[in-house]
Amino acid sequence: MASKLTSRSTDYSKWYNEIVVNADLAENSAVRGCMVIKPYGYAIWEKMQAELDKMFKATGHENAYFPLFVPKSLFEAEEKNAEGFAKECAVVTHYRLKNDENNPGKLIVDPNAKLEEELVVRPTSEAVIWNTYKTWIQSYRDLPILINQWANVVRWEMRTRLFLRTAEFLWQEGHTAHATKAEAMTEAKLMNQVYADFVENYMAIPVIQGVKTESERFAGAEETFCIEALMQDGKALQAGTSHFLGQNFAKAFDVKYATAEGGLEYVWATSWGVSTRLIGALIMTHSDDNGLVLPPNLAPTQVVIIPIYRGEEEQNKVAATAEKIKVALEEQNIRVKFDNRDKFKPGYKFNDYELKGVPLRIAIGPKDLQNGTVEIARRDNLTKEVVSQDEIVDYISSQLAQIQIDLFEKAKAFRADNITKVDDFKTFQEVIKGKGGFISAHWDGTNESEEAIKKATKATIRCIPLDNVKEAGVCVYSGKPSNQRVLFAKSY
Amino acid sequence: MASKLTSRSTDYSKWYNEIVVNADLAENSAVRGCMVIKPYGYAIWEKMQAELDKMFKATGHENAYFPLFVPKSLFEAEEKNAEGFAKECAVVTHYRLKNDENNPGKLIVDPNAKLEEELVVRPTSEAVIWNTYKTWIQSYRDLPILINQWANVVRWEMRTRLFLRTAEFLWQEGHTAHATKAEAMTEAKLMNQVYADFVENYMAIPVIQGVKTESERFAGAEETFCIEALMQDGKALQAGTSHFLGQNFAKAFDVKYATAEGGLEYVWATSWGVSTRLIGALIMTHSDDNGLVLPPNLAPTQVVIIPIYRGEEEQNKVAATAEKIKVALEEQNIRVKFDNRDKFKPGYKFNDYELKGVPLRIAIGPKDLQNGTVEIARRDNLTKEVVSQDEIVDYISSQLAQIQIDLFEKAKAFRADNITKVDDFKTFQEVIKGKGGFISAHWDGTNESEEAIKKATKATIRCIPLDNVKEAGVCVYSGKPSNQRVLFAKSY
Repeated sequence: MASKLTSRSTDYSKWYNEIVVNADLAENSAVRGCMVIKPYGYAIWEKMQAELDKMFKATGHENAYFPLFVPKSLFEAEEKNAEGFAKECAVVTHYRLKNDENNPGKLIVDPNAKLEEELVVRPTSEAVIWNTYKTWIQSYRDLPILINQWANVVRWEMRTRLFLRTAEFLWQEGHTAHATKAEAMTEAKLMNQVYADFVENYMAIPVIQGVKTESERFAGAEETFCIEALMQDGKALQAGTSHFLGQNFAKAFDVKYATAEGGLEYVWATSWGVSTRLIGALIMTHSDDNGLVLPPNLAPTQVVIIPIYRGEEEQNKVAATAEKIKVALEEQNIRVKFDNRDKFKPGYKFNDYELKGVPLRIAIGPKDLQNGTVEIARRDNLTKEVVSQDEIVDYISSQLAQIQIDLFEKAKAFRADNITKVDDFKTFQEVIKGKGGFISAHWDGTNESEEAIKKATKATIRCIPLDNVKEAGVCVYSGKPSNQRVLFAKSY
Repeated sequence: MASKLTSRSTDYSKWYNEIVVNADLAENSAVRGCMVIKPYGYAIWEKMQAELDKMFKATGHENAYFPLFVPKSLFEAEEKNAEGFAKECAVVTHYRLKNDENNPGKLIVDPNAKLEEELVVRPTSEAVIWNTYKTWIQSYRDLPILINQWANVVRWEMRTRLFLRTAEFLWQEGHTAHATKAEAMTEAKLMNQVYADFVENYMAIPVIQGVKTESERFAGAEETFCIEALMQDGKALQAGTSHFLGQNFAKAFDVKYATAEGGLEYVWATSWGVSTRLIGALIMTHSDDNGLVLPPNLAPTQVVIIPIYRGEEEQNKVAATAEKIKVALEEQNIRVKFDNRDKFKPGYKFNDYELKGVPLRIAIGPKDLQNGTVEIARRDNLTKEVVSQDEIVDYISSQLAQIQIDLFEKAKAFRADNITKVDDFKTFQEVIKGKGGFISAHWDGTNESEEAIKKATKATIRCIPLDNVKEAGVCVYSGKPSNQRVLFAKSY
């Protein structure tokens, strides 16, 4: 609190890290690339989990739990998936430690406890799940299977950043099995839509729904749907993905079902996931140089009440009113905290809750008691207003709703300002270097042009938007014909 | 469903496994010792989590998340803890796989990707958490820290059983830090009480609170509080533990705090946990030869409505009434499922929900429509009653409450019948071999006698009950003086 944050314009990346650490969201651990999610950060994740879980269940999904470990032979069964993740797998090779005879008090890996088959710590669970579905699916009556799992996964990343890219992260992974291609495709799109709804309505982050190009697809998928968001520094962030897996895993694990007509067919699959990475997107979309800004729908504390007083008598009087307001707000299911700690001064508390992004702050002092008022400050736009205590519940309710809307609209306006239509490669390069953001440009549909653009600019195709208008044009790189624009950006 | 379960009297262990698998709770996976928790089993775990989480938060705890991996050097820092878990640690030694040049399509561990320091997959998180607390705690103002984590842990067990003992399991682990010994001790006792309340009131399993003997304590603890339950086969099951860790971890990780008086002291610690093992206890306490019996407070579905009809017209009429009843029950927050699937016959459904332990079953047929009645069957005691549709909501509510009570009382009566006071070792051996259950006997307080009894009978001291009456006696084994009885049993 004491010291100010680095400003975004000075060093965006440093600003981000300082918010994560100073707002008590997360920190690096002693384990390379793994983070500790602190209680305040975890409380945000819990809110996200609760809402997503409700949405998954409302769309017919159930939760289950599959093993952390994937035997190597299962892991390698679906070749593309295995190839995609092999380079970042943590591998368990032994199941015992023993005393180091040369170093009393120290332990070594017991060479006699080597596993016959190595176990991969799941980077994703398609393999272990489809090996299970194989025994669950015999006939069309067993379909669809609509299962979600909340779990930790490990991908050994070399360069890590809190929430955005960590070796271990928390996520949910949906894995569904269907009788027909059409049904699986509908499911993959539906879950991408669920993600879009969640991220827009709860996180107040506007997203573009699209499909990935072949080179950006999930390893083992035939189509990857995604939601892409734009951060304040002009870089894109993939906020969620939903994969149509075709029959790839069914074939790799030999999962067939007896059709109603007496045939035998391979099963169709989807998988879809969002992770703690979303917290990184949340921070980078709304926060400012004063710290975190949280949308009310996800804020663990929506309103904080801070008393201003001198001496115990005043404190008691103020506290009595504060408690009344707290109860009245809680009756409306508003999440309120009354911070009556005497060992911290109001100024310190103001700064702390500003840093932590609590949407509304109520300050009550002796003058307010006389006037029957309180002072209410909005975190997002830093405005203050004096409000009558009689109107406080309605005022707070409507302000919380308004902040949620305003944050979304602000982010949407920022994004609108940062989607640039570009028709030549020189401008493309200038925009990417300068303004950043999304570039909407024609692309000839080849891996070669995509790769060449990436090499020259570090920009990748974030997605082919679902609501794309078809229009004739020429590829911004190759000059070859194209029938639609796609979205390029540098990305997290 | 088709085939009957093995009866408890024929083969208790087989009966248990069949219930777990046939009631769709869990199954073994392709990974040695790791289980798949199926949706129905996971739904029970979710109910347990939700209730426990509420109780933890009500007692001032917050959730957080710490890394899955523990670097070996941290793991070995607290020697007793390390020694206790070293023999069952899954160890990550490499971070990459690569193509096997001799075997196209196969992968091998990349020998060039060996970790400098091996990582232990957490068997418990004291080490990684206390290494973190070290940076969080400077002064008395930073205390207490009251944190819980919901996580998976891995203990490499040689003989595993679904829910009861698996290599990977799900649990929660609380880790708290305190300024004083008294405060830490109070916390350890409080959380044991929370566990007792949860297990008795929600799971309807009576427990005995006690402390462990030195040899049965958690590795690294100075006192282990526990709750012990008795299963139907006369074996005890440790349902939860809460540890007073003294200053052992503070010393191992050098965690000191500045006192208000300006001194510098080591911090006091507790940890406490319950796991998916509780589901094993749930099954073995209440279930019968027809399948699972679930206490209403934890049943994912409390009431199932099964329609009886011939032809579509009757089905529609019955369904209309069933839907009305469903809505009326749901308004009272009762979890109801209306199983209107046409492809399964009522008899099949009756058996299936009986196997799955749904507390109440409502059957509605054409006759019921005429009479304005329904037939309601209780799963626990298999009684049926015809009830007027007008009274259904009250009847169901009161029956659910009654079943919860009856299950608890039945289990309590069973336990009372199976605690045997024994004063000589011959009887001790006979009771353990025959009737089983808890034996309340004098013990001289030495490891030697405890060990000798264990060797002779396989019975261990489950706990020294907290509410023990002090009485003079002689050790059932050694004949040496003793001042209290302790509880022995064979255990899971």
